[in-house]
Amino acid sequence: MAQAGGGPRHRFRRDSEMSRDTVRVEAFSDAVIAVALTLMAVELLQFNPSGAADTDLVSRLQQEWRAFLAYIITFAIVGQIWLTHHNSWRYVVRVDQMLLVLNLIMLMFVAAIPFTANQLSDHLRGSDVDQQLSAAIYVGAVLGEALFFNLGWWWARSHGLLNPDLDPRLAASVSRRYLVRPLLYLLAFAIVFVNPILSLLAYLLLVAIYLVRGPGDLPPGGYEKSERGEPSGDHGPEN
Amino acid sequence: MAQAGGGPRHRFRRDSEMSRDTVRVEAFSDAVIAVALTLMAVELLQFNPSGAADTDLVSRLQQEWRAFLAYIITFAIVGQIWLTHHNSWRYVVRVDQMLLVLNLIMLMFVAAIPFTANQLSDHLRGSDVDQQLSAAIYVGAVLGEALFFNLGWWWARSHGLLNPDLDPRLAASVSRRYLVRPLLYLLAFAIVFVNPILSLLAYLLLVAIYLVRGPGDLPPGGYEKSERGEPSGDHGPEN
Amino acid sequence: MAQAGGGPRHRFRRDSEMSRDTVRVEAFSDAVIAVALTLMAVELLQFNPSGAADTDLVSRLQQEWRAFLAYIITFAIVGQIWLTHHNSWRYVVRVDQMLLVLNLIMLMFVAAIPFTANQLSDHLRGSDVDQQLSAAIYVGAVLGEALFFNLGWWWARSHGLLNPDLDPRLAASVSRRYLVRPLLYLLAFAIVFVNPILSLLAYLLLVAIYLVRGPGDLPPGGYEKSERGEPSGDHGPEN
Amino acid sequence: MAQAGGGPRHRFRRDSEMSRDTVRVEAFSDAVIAVALTLMAVELLQFNPSGAADTDLVSRLQQEWRAFLAYIITFAIVGQIWLTHHNSWRYVVRVDQMLLVLNLIMLMFVAAIPFTANQLSDHLRGSDVDQQLSAAIYVGAVLGEALFFNLGWWWARSHGLLNPDLDPRLAASVSRRYLVRPLLYLLAFAIVFVNPILSLLAYLLLVAIYLVRGPGDLPPGGYEKSERGEPSGDHGPEN
Repeated sequence: MAQAGGGPRHRFRRDSEMSRDTVRVEAFSDAVIAVALTLMAVELLQFNPSGAADTDLVSRLQQEWRAFLAYIITFAIVGQIWLTHHNSWRYVVRVDQMLLVLNLIMLMFVAAIPFTANQLSDHLRGSDVDQQLSAAIYVGAVLGEALFFNLGWWWARSHGLLNPDLDPRLAASVSRRYLVRPLLYLLAFAIVFVNPILSLLAYLLLVAIYLVRGPGDLPPGGYEKSERGEPSGDHGPEN
Repeated sequence: MAQAGGGPRHRFRRDSEMSRDTVRVEAFSDAVIAVALTLMAVELLQFNPSGAADTDLVSRLQQEWRAFLAYIITFAIVGQIWLTHHNSWRYVVRVDQMLLVLNLIMLMFVAAIPFTANQLSDHLRGSDVDQQLSAAIYVGAVLGEALFFNLGWWWARSHGLLNPDLDPRLAASVSRRYLVRPLLYLLAFAIVFVNPILSLLAYLLLVAIYLVRGPGDLPPGGYEKSERGEPSGDHGPEN
Repeated sequence: MAQAGGGPRHRFRRDSEMSRDTVRVEAFSDAVIAVALTLMAVELLQFNPSGAADTDLVSRLQQEWRAFLAYIITFAIVGQIWLTHHNSWRYVVRVDQMLLVLNLIMLMFVAAIPFTANQLSDHLRGSDVDQQLSAAIYVGAVLGEALFFNLGWWWARSHGLLNPDLDPRLAASVSRRYLVRPLLYLLAFAIVFVNPILSLLAYLLLVAIYLVRGPGDLPPGGYEKSERGEPSGDHGPEN
Repeated sequence: MAQAGGGPRHRFRRDSEMSRDTVRVEAFSDAVIAVALTLMAVELLQFNPSGAADTDLVSRLQQEWRAFLAYIITFAIVGQIWLTHHNSWRYVVRVDQMLLVLNLIMLMFVAAIPFTANQLSDHLRGSDVDQQLSAAIYVGAVLGEALFFNLGWWWARSHGLLNPDLDPRLAASVSRRYLVRPLLYLLAFAIVFVNPILSLLAYLLLVAIYLVRGPGDLPPGGYEKSERGEPSGDHGPEN
């Protein structure tokens, strides 16, 4: 509120810069994840142009069911990434430089997932080496995402960026749950040496397992006290 | 506000996790729908490369009018999906895990619509089997969207996620209206066995019918009492 | 707050549905425009694959300068569309069904602009008929956008969706300014019959002309009274 | 609140139009940057179709490592652009017409980065002239972004669009820091005349250097006084 000479009266100075909440980084992450999801649909669901002219739709659909399977499984994985991001960031109250950088690196892996999924679905019919290599690239992108997501959560916890009202014991059990996920992905990947399709189905099973409610998930519905300052009383289900 | 030892004083604990409003899931859904719409434009409106060199623009436009028609109709359908999402979610006050999952599966079908629309427009000139199969895939994506949208609405209603000020009778008539829509889409699809172009036009008619105001739609304009606490009085139209 | 029987006490009923502000429709429109802009970059700036192998980068750049020009001009036009949307919607306080539909149709034309710009840049070297036809499709998308944008503004004005504090005389002069723009675009299009490159440059000139401040534009900077309730006094520029 | 006749009582008139905060322009910029990042992944990570059929995945990966490197470096550069945008715009309290235009031109360069990165990675194996020319186009897009970003910041500073609580001395040192960045990019580009891969690594080094905390960056974590009006006291790290 003062001219340049009256520096001490400015609130935002070199030693007390403005902090920022998480609205913009969440919106940006959403945009990257949303575009990755939709581009993946376009990439994966595009039929192989080779032989397009001489075969009919029925036989092409029979050839392309692997692409449909890869689409569903990759959508499930990326959907789970979004869900976890959505749930974990509700406890983050402000960001610092390092948290943003870790989040950006995480998004770099998310943005690479459509490519790796496409590779995977293309090589499910290839040689054993091709199958295993493309599955390794696929799980690499997923593990890279999980690694930097975990690093971001750990950083936020240990640098006072989380809501001070968050019980540290809850934060600790959330951390443990987040850490187990990449290990399970490695397990699903290992199945590729037995059968690549079975490996994909194992990913799907994993995503399903994580839907069982655990620490860090959203509370169940019902008009709860904390939000209206009164007992939920007579507002039961209405259908 | 207390150290780890004073757990009970933390507001967010394992048994009382923070809930979350709908801002982020709405923004994320918007991003997926917006990207799907725009990618669809790029995909559908891309001329077939075959024979690009030897024909002029006039004759190619004559060949490609089906793509334009498919673009307009698919934009109308996806536009209506957005409109319904926009209107229904204004009554949702908070989300739980299952509502987010149902919304993600709905988005999986939305993201697949550009591909199915492209298939449809490519095969409108194909054999009868090709036409009917691509129309079935198209309506499959639309029905999948409608199914999971309806499931999400039903879940929100029956688990106390809607605004408690919403009259249950209004919620019930909104539900009925949402349920009829997929049935009408099936009808439009059935016409493909008569004529595929007629079937597309039936979709367009359906979207138009749903613009007639019904339960769940936005109220008409005018500065209404509820928002300013005073009669709308002298604020009539001004043009 | 009451059970289904006590209907009259619910605030949102069949005859008094909840209204909605403009936050979500603005964010959705932004997403569509942003994706269109970025896809346009990818489409337009992609070199023609024909002859890719046998020519070097220098000669290909010389061939592709039309694509760069088309990119800059289309970015300018779509950028102006966003700017006008951004400025006009700050006066809109709530939406109704029809305003959303008009906005969606406007976005349908915006999403088609990357395709039309690509066509235009491809046919700048074609026959006269090709040039004029692709320029007509291009201006058609731009005019369609302008038409439905104008209809939306007119609808908002005449149905009480604008801020009641907006001076009707200002609203009227904004309307006149918005109406002139499509007429000028038609003029720029007509120049294609003289020279297609000249026509593109005329579009660029038009966008530049609209940067001259007129009714509906944002006010100039400086800490103004209306926002802080005090004279701007000693807060001059600080560089 | 009055009819057209009572003009003076309207708050928003021709000479006192409504101003607007930065929420929408930030969200729009985020969307463009997010799409550019994700499209870049799809473009860069797409294997060259030539020879796709006759070579296996291993040998193709060996050929394509340049694309991976270009992806990581371009993601780092665009990530830094987002980070700088995120940090600098927290001090902007309102926008005027010119700031929006400068921001749009900046986005035009950002949207062109996927194309230039693709060109660069394609020509890393080409002739010396091809390498240097594609590196020049690449750095041109990055420098164009930096130029218009700096112009926008300068405009906001000199036209009273920044938070009045921002110490002008902080604003000045932020400006100096922003100005040095493009000069360093030029340095990294110059290395292309020695070795193109080395030049890319120099970009990566530059991004890393800018992660060292300087003026304009976010403050470090910890529950700070300014946000809660109380000493941070007993809220240390909790892991």
